[in-house]
Amino acid sequence: MDATKYEDFRSPARILLGPGPSMVPPRVLRAMAVPMIGHLDPAFLRVMDDVQELLRFVFQTENELTIPVSGTGSAGMEAALSNFIEPGDQVLIAVNGYFSERMVEMAGRYGAQIDRIDRPWGEVFEVEEIRAALKKKKYKFIALVHGATSTGALRTDVAAITEAAHEQGALVILDTVASLGGVPVEVDAWDVDVAFSGTQKGLSCPPGLAPLTVGERARDALRKRKTPVGNWYFDLMMVDKYWGETRTYHHTAPVSLNFALREGLRIIAEEGLEARFARHQEIAEMLWQGLEEMDLVLLMEPKYRLATLTTVQLPSTIDDLNVRTRLREEYNIEIAGGFGPLAGKIWRIGLMGFSCRRENVLRLLSALKEIISSG
Amino acid sequence: MDATKYEDFRSPARILLGPGPSMVPPRVLRAMAVPMIGHLDPAFLRVMDDVQELLRFVFQTENELTIPVSGTGSAGMEAALSNFIEPGDQVLIAVNGYFSERMVEMAGRYGAQIDRIDRPWGEVFEVEEIRAALKKKKYKFIALVHGATSTGALRTDVAAITEAAHEQGALVILDTVASLGGVPVEVDAWDVDVAFSGTQKGLSCPPGLAPLTVGERARDALRKRKTPVGNWYFDLMMVDKYWGETRTYHHTAPVSLNFALREGLRIIAEEGLEARFARHQEIAEMLWQGLEEMDLVLLMEPKYRLATLTTVQLPSTIDDLNVRTRLREEYNIEIAGGFGPLAGKIWRIGLMGFSCRRENVLRLLSALKEIISSG
Repeated sequence: MDATKYEDFRSPARILLGPGPSMVPPRVLRAMAVPMIGHLDPAFLRVMDDVQELLRFVFQTENELTIPVSGTGSAGMEAALSNFIEPGDQVLIAVNGYFSERMVEMAGRYGAQIDRIDRPWGEVFEVEEIRAALKKKKYKFIALVHGATSTGALRTDVAAITEAAHEQGALVILDTVASLGGVPVEVDAWDVDVAFSGTQKGLSCPPGLAPLTVGERARDALRKRKTPVGNWYFDLMMVDKYWGETRTYHHTAPVSLNFALREGLRIIAEEGLEARFARHQEIAEMLWQGLEEMDLVLLMEPKYRLATLTTVQLPSTIDDLNVRTRLREEYNIEIAGGFGPLAGKIWRIGLMGFSCRRENVLRLLSALKEIISSG
Repeated sequence: MDATKYEDFRSPARILLGPGPSMVPPRVLRAMAVPMIGHLDPAFLRVMDDVQELLRFVFQTENELTIPVSGTGSAGMEAALSNFIEPGDQVLIAVNGYFSERMVEMAGRYGAQIDRIDRPWGEVFEVEEIRAALKKKKYKFIALVHGATSTGALRTDVAAITEAAHEQGALVILDTVASLGGVPVEVDAWDVDVAFSGTQKGLSCPPGLAPLTVGERARDALRKRKTPVGNWYFDLMMVDKYWGETRTYHHTAPVSLNFALREGLRIIAEEGLEARFARHQEIAEMLWQGLEEMDLVLLMEPKYRLATLTTVQLPSTIDDLNVRTRLREEYNIEIAGGFGPLAGKIWRIGLMGFSCRRENVLRLLSALKEIISSG
């Protein structure tokens, strides 16, 4: 092994305007890099307490079982689904994008009997459609996405959906990966039973943890399981004992990422949620206006637009990959293309957390203008 | 939310001589804290390539499918087991400690038919026992622990076990969480089919990634599965597409932890494996001698002692918790107590990676002497 072939890694320090990871504030990077301590050290247990309190704050909940799952956003999804599925359980999934499709695939692996309602990617379900679907069967839960990373669609009526679900005795599992920390997520006010997210979008922390919160109704469902959860790593009854009072060892928490998350959440607490959401909305509107002034058409109509992730339709005159490559290589800016049915048809532009700044919108718009006009 | 109640976190910067996490070299902490980049950025794809190459080096393997699983060591265990179990598969697990017991619990969740052979914690199986057990049935795999975190026992004859397993058509899954990077792990020379580890022990990186390597025999078994893997997050056929040539998105890799891992592995490459193993052995022997000079008795007989983790029997005159608390609070040193049947009966003292230094042994021995004599 010739160790000299590996040089110091030098980050290109991109302006990250894709769907995540978002840029990480220097304070968070510094907090992550303090000396390691043990995962059962009293000093780390205090960090865990702070992280839980601060996560409750960003989720706007009093839920005791509020933790960062030790994996990325997809791990949060897997934890959220697998803990509430026993083989043969009837579940309903509302599918209108990449990640709701993923929920179907995950839930199937745990033996759920899945009914799905479908809308084309980028369309938003009416509450009445969901209410009607919920009446067909007695479902254990309905799972749906709050802010869609693949389409930029935002559900604005979560409370109406949870009401419809609870009338039928179904729990509500909500994917807030692309929304938490950037647009309002009110777990208690909306009476959401389970919500999960990732750290690398609206929270502007490094990827690797997945905030998750579980309400009392859902916690009861956990306690009433007749079979063990289909996996071990994400088993919330066990994870809860480590994060809860007994501190029973389950797995080694990613210590440094929890340092980072604590600092990232502290920054959010300092800014305040209302100010933060207002900033995200204002800067996103600035982007929307700038794109429209370039005669570009946004995929989502205004009322369903997710401030943290904007989707733009590509005119046929634009070479998707060429523009994105030039943005990255000549302007050091990352944005993303579309997935699945939207591949080659849209760009996805994220304005999340520390990335969500006026100067970044100006940089992107001027870079796009230069590239397209030189095109 | 009163943000001022959360102060800057100040790490107590412990001398970490427990079973992990071990101390993290400043170079690794710095590497982790460079600005974020996207998980599909060409600059990150090069980091992934380097991490894979360097992991092959520490595992001493040419296995193409060699990756860091995006979770802690337990996630590596779950990935290693779940991918090779279809419901009803016959598997054999050799149980003589906490983590082999955990394997039984995990494997059961995926529907394995488990046969176990048992030895009391801290005892080591003879190859002949394992060979005899393997002959009873046609097993899909045998799973066992190389270096036991709960007992300090080291298997010294892995090659003989893989030979016995392969004669019977069984794969070998090896837990190298406590051994990798500190004592020899020779995946190819020993013909191990699947090995997994964690980053926070012998590799001296922060916890949150789980190195995993899968040989061709085992990869064939993956391809021949008739049912999907029982989870989604750890599904190696999907994860492999992200880490492999197509770079198909699966989940967002923990970018910063991969920066850290690359740097930690680079440090190992610079030191060289032979020198590193010699250092671990030499410093561990220094500890053993020092403990014995204090009339303490080591749990393992010399030939089965794991250099990275020493287990010491506690005389009844010593108050376990009191001594460990004083070590932490007065001397800033972390060591660990025992688990399960060994709770209150042993200490576990780790000398792993950057923690494994002569000065740390001297500090610990002198602190222990002071505490015990003041007792």
